[in-house]
Order: sequence, then structure tokens, then C-alpha cells
Amino acid sequence: MFPFAAPVRDLRFVLEELLEYRSLALPGFDEASPDLVEAVLEEAAKLAGEVWAPLNASGDRQGCVRREDGGVTLPDGFAEAYQAYVEGGWNGIGVSQALGGQGLPEVVASSVQEMLHGANMALGLCPMLTAGAIEALAHHGSDALKETYLPRLVEGSWTGTMNLTEPQAGSDLSKVRTRAVPEGDHYRLFGQKIFITWGEHDASENIIHLVLARKPDAPEGNKGISLFLVPKFLVNEDGSLGERNDVTCASIEHKLGIHGSPTCTLSFGEGDGAIGYLVGVEGRGLNHMFTMMNEARHKVGVQGIGVAERACQHAFTYALDRVQGRARGSEATISEHLDVRRMLLSMRARTDALRALALYCAAQLDVARHATDAAEREAAQAQVDVLIPVVKAFSTDQAVDIASLGVQVHGGMGYIEETGAAQLLRDARIAPIYEGTNGIQALDLAGRKLSRDGGTALSGLLDEIEATAGELRKSGELAASGDSLAAGAADLRAAMAIVLEQGGDPERGADAIQAYATPFLSLAGHVLCAWQMGRAALKASAALAGGSDDPFYPAKLAAADFALRQWLPLGRANRSVIEAGMASLSAFNVTS
Amino acid sequence: MFPFAAPVRDLRFVLEELLEYRSLALPGFDEASPDLVEAVLEEAAKLAGEVWAPLNASGDRQGCVRREDGGVTLPDGFAEAYQAYVEGGWNGIGVSQALGGQGLPEVVASSVQEMLHGANMALGLCPMLTAGAIEALAHHGSDALKETYLPRLVEGSWTGTMNLTEPQAGSDLSKVRTRAVPEGDHYRLFGQKIFITWGEHDASENIIHLVLARKPDAPEGNKGISLFLVPKFLVNEDGSLGERNDVTCASIEHKLGIHGSPTCTLSFGEGDGAIGYLVGVEGRGLNHMFTMMNEARHKVGVQGIGVAERACQHAFTYALDRVQGRARGSEATISEHLDVRRMLLSMRARTDALRALALYCAAQLDVARHATDAAEREAAQAQVDVLIPVVKAFSTDQAVDIASLGVQVHGGMGYIEETGAAQLLRDARIAPIYEGTNGIQALDLAGRKLSRDGGTALSGLLDEIEATAGELRKSGELAASGDSLAAGAADLRAAMAIVLEQGGDPERGADAIQAYATPFLSLAGHVLCAWQMGRAALKASAALAGGSDDPFYPAKLAAADFALRQWLPLGRANRSVIEAGMASLSAFNVTS
Repeated sequence: MFPFAAPVRDLRFVLEELLEYRSLALPGFDEASPDLVEAVLEEAAKLAGEVWAPLNASGDRQGCVRREDGGVTLPDGFAEAYQAYVEGGWNGIGVSQALGGQGLPEVVASSVQEMLHGANMALGLCPMLTAGAIEALAHHGSDALKETYLPRLVEGSWTGTMNLTEPQAGSDLSKVRTRAVPEGDHYRLFGQKIFITWGEHDASENIIHLVLARKPDAPEGNKGISLFLVPKFLVNEDGSLGERNDVTCASIEHKLGIHGSPTCTLSFGEGDGAIGYLVGVEGRGLNHMFTMMNEARHKVGVQGIGVAERACQHAFTYALDRVQGRARGSEATISEHLDVRRMLLSMRARTDALRALALYCAAQLDVARHATDAAEREAAQAQVDVLIPVVKAFSTDQAVDIASLGVQVHGGMGYIEETGAAQLLRDARIAPIYEGTNGIQALDLAGRKLSRDGGTALSGLLDEIEATAGELRKSGELAASGDSLAAGAADLRAAMAIVLEQGGDPERGADAIQAYATPFLSLAGHVLCAWQMGRAALKASAALAGGSDDPFYPAKLAAADFALRQWLPLGRANRSVIEAGMASLSAFNVTS
Repeated sequence: MFPFAAPVRDLRFVLEELLEYRSLALPGFDEASPDLVEAVLEEAAKLAGEVWAPLNASGDRQGCVRREDGGVTLPDGFAEAYQAYVEGGWNGIGVSQALGGQGLPEVVASSVQEMLHGANMALGLCPMLTAGAIEALAHHGSDALKETYLPRLVEGSWTGTMNLTEPQAGSDLSKVRTRAVPEGDHYRLFGQKIFITWGEHDASENIIHLVLARKPDAPEGNKGISLFLVPKFLVNEDGSLGERNDVTCASIEHKLGIHGSPTCTLSFGEGDGAIGYLVGVEGRGLNHMFTMMNEARHKVGVQGIGVAERACQHAFTYALDRVQGRARGSEATISEHLDVRRMLLSMRARTDALRALALYCAAQLDVARHATDAAEREAAQAQVDVLIPVVKAFSTDQAVDIASLGVQVHGGMGYIEETGAAQLLRDARIAPIYEGTNGIQALDLAGRKLSRDGGTALSGLLDEIEATAGELRKSGELAASGDSLAAGAADLRAAMAIVLEQGGDPERGADAIQAYATPFLSLAGHVLCAWQMGRAALKASAALAGGSDDPFYPAKLAAADFALRQWLPLGRANRSVIEAGMASLSAFNVTS
């Protein structure tokens, strides 16, 4: 068993010092005082550390089993741990009070999510999917659907799923074939969906599937796709559960990681057809689904950060315990060797940086939803739109690398499954793939998001980054970090100009975006994260100048220095990659 | 089952065009004609593709099982596949004829190793360890030991192991505690060794363990360690097998990957003590072991390249088959999308580059061993000394990343174990850890190897790199690649100057080397590999100018362009990392 201490201090640093609890000042959060937020974080840390974390390794070993009756048996303790989460009222913390939630700001909900994913990513997926279903229903469901399904989903006694992928329709959902045949006030669905996370289990009383499908007369392509709600158990008028619907788990996947999360193939309509209800407008299924995917992408980024945090804790604990070799003349733990410290600090600095950026994005989400001023809301939403693909892709790519470095810190022990470091790498590896591959995120950023506003939102962020660089430069000891950040901002501006210019070319614009997207996102991620660490350095430096003797601040300064001067340069190199053009990508003849 | 086509064409390109079959001109290789080499490669490709590769996935699924009788059951087919290798005479191809081998050049042996590791890395480990045992015995064993053990080891009917690690002695072998008590002409060994690759199995008639241990009166530390040979079965005077020795497999590890390779905890002397024989000089055990570790490190680098090659083949095959989305107006396989091509070309370019560097190093090994001129031998050995830590660490780090990118190309399917891409990532992940962690390799390069000759050997390589850059610059279409390579060489020179200067500081030299080692090795790896791709571009360009219509050459040009202009810049950034200094590493207070 590997203890996990949810990073309350680090989260509070971001909420209080970097974000200055800005979200709490917004309308609608009157009841959310700093004290309340602290209490929420402390309680969530207990649930994460004491209830969820102890099941992480056993859940991995045991995995999920599809029973002969079509049900899925979860690892021991998972149903109870989920129940504890529901009973603690955790499922509704970020959901508005109008929908029966506690209506806490997104920054708080995201902080709690990070802790839970760090504790047990496989289990954390269950409420993550439910949150998506709540979002989609709240935005697009009829009053009747909302009344029947939302309260139980918000409570968590029913869970939700997203049914998008079919064997021929992955990144390209226009190829969805599942049929929805109208029958009175409902539809009968027929088809097969794959990779359905938490698609079948007994941890909740009911499972509410949100399913992309087409009516028999629907046009080909995206416009023929609608969104349907298909409950596992039909719901009677009085809200009690009725018959089992015609949706069954055909199989579960044998995956690299997240073994505690049942990934199902679901068959709809093996018999008379699964009864489903249209959500929102016919033919708008993809748009409706993307309402929830945007926020789900933020959550996947946060999930990566949770696993990265746990990898840090594993590696630090091991490095502080393992005696090997000598440093400065005497026997030493490996944490004394600078080459090992490089790995540890690299893990820590990046995890801190990713967290700060994800929570900055969450704070902008709060502003975008709650600010009184429409222009303020719009400006915040424009930043969110740019930041979400970065938070999703960059955090998850980095999380894989951080978890891999965590294995390396353990040496030979890292390769042994019992140590637990390898599981974190296996678990982390899915996050760059699902909720839109990281390649899709990069295309979203370098294509849609950048072209839509001609780079205005990112340019605005760059103004802020340059201001932070200026502040760093004015402070003697942080001047070198300021120079590095300013250089990074200049690189990102230059790269953006290339992507906007070549991406706008009517002839080869799509190719240019495809070619430059991934290095562009990597560059943006490095610069944005380094910016947050620059802000952290300023805060830490001020705290120390103000007389603080909290060892937290010197550690944050070291992490910031590493992020700005040892990590950012590696990311800045992506400018050269973009400037080198795309000739070799086009010329390369892919043959097997 | 996933077909694997050993990369004969790519290997031949390196041997014939980049290395111009230089090794074949050396004394002692008179019988090794280009035709013979080609035939060897073709035959090895058959063994790899037809016999070893089909067992890769099943071996992973099945794994190894320790039986109640203390034996280990290998996955189905492994013993037979190993037998086919022995019967084909493959085990001795790189061993000198004087020792009963075929005495082919190291470049050929390395090429064959790459194919076999690509086919089945877990199985490939068995002969890899035997080769180490042969090396150690040939260099340090008494005539009697050599006579008794070498012929069967060279043949492969007996296999070898290296017994170094104990729970408290990993990277720091000075902590070895296993005892060797003198008794007549032999010793009795008592102790426990962990992480012993292929430590127990039934695929060969006998297993010859090479074991680090200390005599009861031996001094503490490195100087008390001697090397012993401990056979699984004692060998009678007539060469027949005698009694079972007192060495037993206590357990096998449950690992992230290479499930087909039994990683054993071996107990020596649970009863009367395991009978062992001193190899070489008392107290020189570590030095003797390093004789074989240096070449074993090259082999681990080659192993990484084998897995990287297989990951390329998986990803290319999938990308050419998977239809998703549209490109240039029509339905397309994902290999048409430039963002996917970026991944594919990155995998291919890096695999090609790593292979070229590893075989360049092998060619220098041939010169170091066989050249008539002593100065020539010495110069080659000096290059080998610098290159081996790079080949080991850089190839294996890159292999992990390449295998991870291979998973990404497969999207959701990549995360499903049945697809096979995930196994390659799991298997590859051990290579940066064993045979000296990659951190140890970096210290070896930036410390011992650089300081010993004041950077002369690396500087000589940089002269050659600059010459290649000059040639590229003279060729119109490759000029930009030449500029990039020249800039990379300048970065490496600058970084080397810093490491030499600060590393030579008597006060803080050790710290400086610890702090800079890993970014320095990464920089060196990128520049050396890019150099090889620059040479490949010149050859490909010349072939095309000479009228060749072989599609191999334009593909190589695209890979070289990518390596030099899209990959090298990322590595060059390590110069800034080193220039930023090590203040944050020293300042960082590691706490859990």
C-alpha cells in the first residue's frame, strides 16, 4: 500500500496566492468563503487519502470482470469507496445549486478532482463521466428528462456514460452508425459502442448512457447524428426503477492500465431495441456532445496532474529512503545525488506548473460563467477556449513523462509491479488518447481556436506573460528567469504568426495546421506553464522578503527556477521546429 | 499475431553505404565477404521473423512461472525458439574463431542482435547475458575454466547470467555482501542476488552464473569484491553434468514488461554453500565485470533500437490501414494526416538515426580490436568509450518515447493489450534502467570518459561532424540541414567546455558533473545521431543524383531532414539547460 497525501498545501497556494481567490468574489459564490474552501479541501483530502488511495494498487491487480450474467464485477472496495463519495455529497460540489448541487466554483471542484484522480484514477473516471452527462442534460435536455434524471445523477446514486466511439468511428465521429428508430415518444436504438468507460457496473442503482446515433432517415455525416439518453433500467413515472433496458455489456477490454475502470463494449438492441430519448435538437448530437467534451477535456488534464502528483510522491519517498552511493564524503540517500535531484525537481516543477495552469483555466471558467459583465465573461471564455486543449494535451503528455521518470527514480524496483510506480505510468498513458487524442487537441488549438479570433485571446495571454516577465526582470534574483520567460513569449508570438499566416492560406492552410499543430501546442504549453511558475516565483519571493520562514517558499522558488530556466528552453525549441517548415512531412512516403 | 519484418534493407544501408563495409577489410575477417554478410542477415531475418517474432505476444501474455520444484517454466515455444537459434549457430557469430565462434565483425553481430530483439526482446535477453559471460571468461578465466565452460557457452547449449545486484547493492555495487568461503580449489558461496535475468529455466542444459561476492577476510568496498563462476549443475572432469549445485531460484519478479524473460531472485548456499570458482584476480571482481558490462551496454542500446523498429512497423501498418477523417477532399487512412505523419516520421527518423550510431560504434569496436596499427586501435577505442554510454542511454530513452508514440498512433486501440503496441512500451521501459541506469551512463560520459582524455575523443568526433556539416552545406538542397548540424556541433562543443571546466573544479567538480550529466548526454546523443543522418542524406542524395529510382532513398532523405531540422533543435536546447547552471538543483530541499 502506498500512502497518498493529497497536495492541499500546493492547491491552496494556487487558489489563495496565485489566483487570490478571485472566483469567490463572483456573484453566486457568496457562501463560498476561504474558510469553507479550506474545509472542503481538507475533507476531500481525507476521502482521497484514506478511502480511495488504499484501493489503487489492489484495484489494478484485481481489475474488472465481466460475469456470465452480463454484469461487471468491480475490484473489491470500489463500490463502497464510490458510495462514500456519494454520501459525502462530493458528486455535486461543482454543480449549480439550481440543479441540486453545492455550486462551488470550478477552481474548487477541479482541486477536488485532482486529489481523487491522484488517489485512484480508475475510480475517478466514474464521476468524471457522470459530470459530462449532467452537463449535457442540463444544457440540452427537456424539462421532463432533467426532472427525471438530473437529481439522481447530481447526487451520484446514478452514474453516466458517454457513448461515442464505434469500431469505424473514433476521432471521426461522422461515421457513427448506431440507429435510433422513432417509436411514439421515444426511440429504439440498435448498434454497438466501444470503449465505454464505466459502461456497466453495480456501484450505482442505474446507469444513464448518453448515446450518439442516427435516425433511419438521417443524412450522412455529422448532421445526421443526434444525442439520445438510454437508461440501463427504465424509470417509472414515480421515479422508481422499472424494466432492464435492451443494452448489454458484450465484453470488457484488457487494457494497459486503469484496470479498475470497466471499459465496455455495449450492445444496444440485441432484442427489441434499447429505449432511448432524444436529448436536445435532432441532428445536433455532435454539438451537444461537445458541450460536455470541452469541460471533460479540462478534467482529463486535471486527471493527468493527479497522477503526476502521485508519481512525485512515490519518487520522493523512495529517493529519501534509498541509500546508495556517497555524496559529499558520506553515505547518502539517492535524493542527495544531483542527477537524481534533477529527476525529482523536474517532476515536481512540472507538476506544480501544470496544476497552476489548469486552475488558472478553471478560474477563467468561473469568470466566464459568473461574471456580471458580459465583456468580461466573453474575454474569459475566449481564454478558456484557447487553454482547454493545452490543459488537456500538455498536462497528459507531461504526466506520462513524469510517471516514466518516476519509474526511473526507482531503478530496478520501478520495473517491478509491486512497487506501484509502473502502475502510474500504465494508468497515465490513456490520458493523451481519450476525450480527443492530443493530436486532435493540437489541431483544435492551432486551427479552430487560433483562426477563429485571429490569435486575439492567445495574444492577450502573451501580454500578461510579458508583464510577468517584466516583473521578474525587475527583481534582481529572478531576472534570469524573467529573461527566459520573455524569450519564450517571443518564440510563441513568432510561432503563432507563422501558424496564422500559413494556416490562413486557402491552398495549403489545412496542411500547415496539421503539420505545425503538435509543436505549436508543446511550445504554448511550456510558455504558459512557465508563466505560472514565474508568477509563483514572484509570490514566493515576496513571502520570503516579508519574513516567512515556511520551507514551502524556497522549494517553490527552486521549482520555478527549474521550470523557467531548465524546462522552458526545451519547449522553446519548438519554434525552430515550426520554422523548419513541413517539407519532410509532405515528402515522406509512408510505406509499411 | 503481429508480423515483424527484420529491417534488412536499413541494416544493409548502414553497413554498405554509411560504413562502407570498413570492418570487412580488417585483419581476421578475410572470410567475411559482403555476400556472406548479406546471407547472414537474410537468414537471421528469417529466424527473427518466422520463429522468434510469433512468440512475442504469447510470451508476454503467458509469462514465466516458478514451479514448486524451484524450476521456472518458460512461455510455450521459448525453449524451442532458443534451440533453433542454437542449432543455427547464431550464438557464436560474433565470438572469435579462437574461442569456437564464427568470428564475424561486431557490426554484423549487432545487426543480428537488433533483429532478434525486435522480434522478441524477452527471449533476446537470454543470449545477451550469455555473451557477457563468454566475454568475462574469455578475458579473465583460467585456462581450465575456459576449457570447461567456454565451448558450451559459445555453442549456446549452456547459458550465462550476471549476478550483481543485491537488495542493498544496486547502482552502488561496493555494498555487495554475498560471501565466498575458500574450500580447497574452489569456494562455497552464500548470499542472495536479485534481478537475475534468465537466472533459472530449462531451455539449456546448464546455466553458468557469474557472481560478485567477497571472501570472508576481504576488505570493505569495491576492493573486496571478486568474481566467481557458479554453475547450476557441477561439471565432471569429462565434461558431463554432475550434481545440482546449491543455487536455487527463490522467486521470480512480476514485472511491467519482458514477461517472457524470467527475472529471478537466486539463493546461493541455502545448504552447504554453492560451489564456485574464482574468475580472474581476487579483489578485481568489479573490474572484470565491467569488461563485459561495457559491451553489454552497447547490446542494451541495440535492444532499444530493435524494439523501436518494431514499434515503427506496428504504427506504420496500423496507420496505413486505419481509415479515419478526410485528407485533400476524400476519405483517407490516418497516414495521410500530417499530424500523424509527424509521429510516424519522428519514430522512423529516430530509429534510423539510433541504428546508424550504434553500428558506427560497433564498427569502431571492430577497428579497436582488429586494426593492425596500434594508434588506430587506440583512437577507435577512445571513440568507443565515449559512444557506448550514449548508445546505451540515448537509444533506450528514445526507444521508450518511440514506443509510446507508437501507442499514440493507434489511438484507443493502442491502449488495448491485444493490439500489441502497449507491450512494446512495457518491454522498452526496462532498458533505461538495467546494465547501469541511464543516469549512471550520463555520469560515465560527462565524468570519467570526458575527464580522462580532456574531451579529446569527443572533440575528434566533433571534427568529423563539422566536416559532414560542411559537406551538407555545399550541397544546395541539404544546406539547411548542414546549418542545423553545424549549430548542433557548436552547442555540443560549448557544453563540453562547461562540463570540462566546472567538472575539473576540485571543490564542486563532482556536483557539476552530477548536475550536467543528463542534459549533456542528451545533447551529445542528438548531435551524434543527427550527424549519422546527415551522412545518410549525403549518401541518399548521391544515389538519387546517380539515377537510382529506389524509393528507399527519398524516404531516407525525408527522415534525415526531419532528424536534422525537426528533432535536433529539441536536443540542442540542452545547451541552455547546462548554461543555466545548477543552482536550483542544489538549492532544492527534497522532502516528502
